[in-house]
Amino acid sequence: MLVRYAFIETYKTPFYCNNFSSHSTMSIYQATTSAPVNIACIKYWGKRNESLILPTNSSLSVTLSQDNLRSTTTARADPSFAADCLWLNGKVDPIKPGGRLHTCISEMKRLRTAFEAANPDQPKIASFNVHICSFNNFPTAAGLASSASGFAALVYALAKLYALPQTPEELSLIARRGSGSACRSLFGGFVAWDMGSDDVTGLDSKARQVASESHWPEMEALICVVNDAKKGTSSTSGMQRTVVTSALLQHRIGYVVPSRMADIESAIADKRFGDFAEITMRDSNQFHAVALDTYPPIFYMNDVSRAIIAIITEYNRLSDQPKAAYTYDAGPNAVIYALTPNVREIAQLVLYYFPQAEKVIIGGQEVEAALPEGFNEAVAKRWEVGSVKGLIHTRVGDGPRVLSDSEALLNAQGIPKVLA
Amino acid sequence: MLVRYAFIETYKTPFYCNNFSSHSTMSIYQATTSAPVNIACIKYWGKRNESLILPTNSSLSVTLSQDNLRSTTTARADPSFAADCLWLNGKVDPIKPGGRLHTCISEMKRLRTAFEAANPDQPKIASFNVHICSFNNFPTAAGLASSASGFAALVYALAKLYALPQTPEELSLIARRGSGSACRSLFGGFVAWDMGSDDVTGLDSKARQVASESHWPEMEALICVVNDAKKGTSSTSGMQRTVVTSALLQHRIGYVVPSRMADIESAIADKRFGDFAEITMRDSNQFHAVALDTYPPIFYMNDVSRAIIAIITEYNRLSDQPKAAYTYDAGPNAVIYALTPNVREIAQLVLYYFPQAEKVIIGGQEVEAALPEGFNEAVAKRWEVGSVKGLIHTRVGDGPRVLSDSEALLNAQGIPKVLA
Repeated sequence: MLVRYAFIETYKTPFYCNNFSSHSTMSIYQATTSAPVNIACIKYWGKRNESLILPTNSSLSVTLSQDNLRSTTTARADPSFAADCLWLNGKVDPIKPGGRLHTCISEMKRLRTAFEAANPDQPKIASFNVHICSFNNFPTAAGLASSASGFAALVYALAKLYALPQTPEELSLIARRGSGSACRSLFGGFVAWDMGSDDVTGLDSKARQVASESHWPEMEALICVVNDAKKGTSSTSGMQRTVVTSALLQHRIGYVVPSRMADIESAIADKRFGDFAEITMRDSNQFHAVALDTYPPIFYMNDVSRAIIAIITEYNRLSDQPKAAYTYDAGPNAVIYALTPNVREIAQLVLYYFPQAEKVIIGGQEVEAALPEGFNEAVAKRWEVGSVKGLIHTRVGDGPRVLSDSEALLNAQGIPKVLA
Repeated sequence: MLVRYAFIETYKTPFYCNNFSSHSTMSIYQATTSAPVNIACIKYWGKRNESLILPTNSSLSVTLSQDNLRSTTTARADPSFAADCLWLNGKVDPIKPGGRLHTCISEMKRLRTAFEAANPDQPKIASFNVHICSFNNFPTAAGLASSASGFAALVYALAKLYALPQTPEELSLIARRGSGSACRSLFGGFVAWDMGSDDVTGLDSKARQVASESHWPEMEALICVVNDAKKGTSSTSGMQRTVVTSALLQHRIGYVVPSRMADIESAIADKRFGDFAEITMRDSNQFHAVALDTYPPIFYMNDVSRAIIAIITEYNRLSDQPKAAYTYDAGPNAVIYALTPNVREIAQLVLYYFPQAEKVIIGGQEVEAALPEGFNEAVAKRWEVGSVKGLIHTRVGDGPRVLSDSEALLNAQGIPKVLA
């Protein structure tokens, strides 16, 4: 396993969140959790309800190991806190009324209130203000979406702080309102987000585990972090524009995704990698196709992304069934899914076209650039160092974890340790 | 007007086409014509019948001026010729039995045979072998499709050689069988290719002039010739793959194109440039979207193409209605349609981001790089010289022309002058 990033962020002094009164001697109500990143095989793109974050189609993702990529969150409730306050990567992130953070925190307090009403012996902490400190172990510059793991860790930390009885499925309803795809980070393994049909409450639009992280342990992922000069369209505004302007999206929603969801669930159940890979690649292509069919068009992939597709396409041509599956989210980074026996060969191939400044280690051994026998070298040019600025090798992982107090991000006074 | 290419090709000695018998003293049956390039606003992508070249949807294009871009063809029939023979840009192009060249030449001979039967006083030349010499005044390296202008010039030259009574519409049926979009180069101005419904004969799948070249004289075009390291998928094999694998293509064919065809014809009739531009850009986007939805995916645009889209999108944001329309065929080159008053400003903008090695002259005056007021410079980076390797400024033009004998490409012996 290899993560090629130093986890260093610059921390800023907060402004209004340190105006709480002096620390009391009461019990400490605090929980620390971590949650994983998920990368979709069937893409979420389009909301039918913006405020409830109800999607226009179901989606399905693979949860990646928290050993490599994770968001960690500590939540504490204390009567001394002057306000709800959240620090993200060391900076205060304002909790705007009616905003997504506000919605998630309010919903969790509502569940705690109900829990206290049903369990009169429990401490009355629902009305306390909370301090929340969250940290992603991968830099924003990596271009990996952190909102999914971040909102999953937030909701899970509050659920543990509040000792709530809700299942991950029920918690996924709240994570969804923070960031749609966050609902899928409440589970490990292979996770569907069923779009549901209740447009008033959205209570049937939630995550469901399709298979656990132990079901298909050979499934691994190689993330190619691609340099991109320009920041693309945000996914929130991008998907709005697609829903309004793309003539093709409705066909995708109505006819393509439903059968793909059924097909990929079956491929996962039977561990048919070739089918899993083809569906994953086709759905990545189609998501970017509807982005391009948007007016004005949206592009997330660049020439490096295109080159990786050409390389994986040629690699797959060499065998009866695909042995690698690329997928691209709302950015130029490639995530390549492959089974354990093929990962080294694929990393060698990527290195051949995209030389790295630093050694790449997989399974304890350095990877050397190489092409498989019969591979048509001319499908792409060899790029300069830095075009793919990092490789992250990881695998399928588990759902949110409860961490020990020693890993808490808040100090005894309830302020972020990095700021203390 | 500006064409930035030297029209120089290397000529090779032919092999079997000079084995005709000595020149006779009979009449010379020869015609020389030229035909224009056309660039589609509603794209042709997909055949429902490969051998007849019947498309899956109707399309519509603008014919560009032959003053700038053209194919020129001389056709001669002579009893002394040992075989049908064709030279393209100075090289023999084999006329394979059952191939597209063979089909077009056979069909034209068939029409001549019928014409001779109906007009017994006419010379019997249908059975003579023909020599055909064709030349594109733009190099293949420019990445502009030459098959449309080439097959239109070929069919038109044979029609004149044979003194046929067929209309351009009727001739378009034969040009279509050489290269689908060639049928649209039989007319000047704005030209539809109606897909038709007769799958047995294909006789209703032909070109129709929507408006002549004099209808909207302010319509101009700026072609940005984009450097591309890699040759993309050929359009013939690419569209086959799209028809077989894209789930979105059927929706485009069945629901999107029919209304777009009606809308753009109406926009052209009323000279509503904003509507013309929006439909053109949306259809270019959608064509590339279905190419991307193909499995494996097909990409024709590269990062330079994307940058030009970003620049035109930002330019259009500055006014109520679009003042420029980009469109991309099966390659990275941009064709930008605009009205006369805006062309200089657009050329300045393109020059700002894509500096040119040579002076660019429009309307007799050199164009300087500049941004319009209020333009957000950050929508693209400034590229190095050569990223856009040439600009061609042209306008809407007329249909095929009959040229004088002094412009013939064959010498008195019926072999290409450049080889003589």
